[in-house]
Amino acid sequence: MNEVRRPHHVSSREIERKFLIRHLPVKILRARLARLAQGYLANERGGRHVRLRKKGKTASLTFKVGRSSSREEREIKLSPAQFAMLWPATRGRRLHKTRYVIPWKKLKIEIDIYHGRNHGLMVAEVEFPNQSSRRKFKPPRWFGREITGEKRYSNVRLARE
Amino acid sequence: MNEVRRPHHVSSREIERKFLIRHLPVKILRARLARLAQGYLANERGGRHVRLRKKGKTASLTFKVGRSSSREEREIKLSPAQFAMLWPATRGRRLHKTRYVIPWKKLKIEIDIYHGRNHGLMVAEVEFPNQSSRRKFKPPRWFGREITGEKRYSNVRLARE
Repeated sequence: MNEVRRPHHVSSREIERKFLIRHLPVKILRARLARLAQGYLANERGGRHVRLRKKGKTASLTFKVGRSSSREEREIKLSPAQFAMLWPATRGRRLHKTRYVIPWKKLKIEIDIYHGRNHGLMVAEVEFPNQSSRRKFKPPRWFGREITGEKRYSNVRLARE
Repeated sequence: MNEVRRPHHVSSREIERKFLIRHLPVKILRARLARLAQGYLANERGGRHVRLRKKGKTASLTFKVGRSSSREEREIKLSPAQFAMLWPATRGRRLHKTRYVIPWKKLKIEIDIYHGRNHGLMVAEVEFPNQSSRRKFKPPRWFGREITGEKRYSNVRLARE
């Protein structure tokens, strides 16, 4: 899961690609899953924002800046009290999804199944160790259209109520 | 000081007025003071923003929304490790000031002396328990022009480098 690879607190530069999902792979049935609730404290143009997230029982606050396939990220773990104080400020800017994680060759694929007003949306995200691995990636056949960098599929946008 | 009246974590609605300072009152010489460094993670139009602050050795993260004399505020205390992880993200969006706190009748006045590129700016802020007390307030003679709600004196604006 995410926590293994990215311990709190963490700063990183993400290299990733996002795709719609044409159909679910069989192995999702045995994949690890986590319920995610996330909300946004503030969003600027250019993808700069501050996000709150609860993943299972783990709460975090994440700063992100930059768009598309490569962005800077800084994340801290929050105590339950810290999370409870800030979460109400995200009212009207939240989304809920279930995340399944599937190992795939030397990478891993995160499958996000959205709930609520985004019901029906299924997105696969692949994170790469470097730009070369990113370019060489051949999407599995169950992937649909690539949506990397498409604003209307950004979580900030999907969280608007 | 601030910590006495507003324990962490806190959510509140501020009622305040801001003034330029014509000249310093003598009692500032015996006032308590604190060095403040603050930086902004993200700012939206409408005064919505997320601020990091270090006041002496105490670090905090504050969400604010709304402008002018009345706004919502949510604040959490941060551990040194949490602060150290997020602070680099405020580069180019920081300000430094020294805050003096002076009791004044049943209220208290905060005097902010700005440093760095805002050197020379001195601002007094008065916080009120309710709107009636706010309206009745008669500024002391050492106050200058009222600047409540003037965007160019907002800390978000003053932090732009």
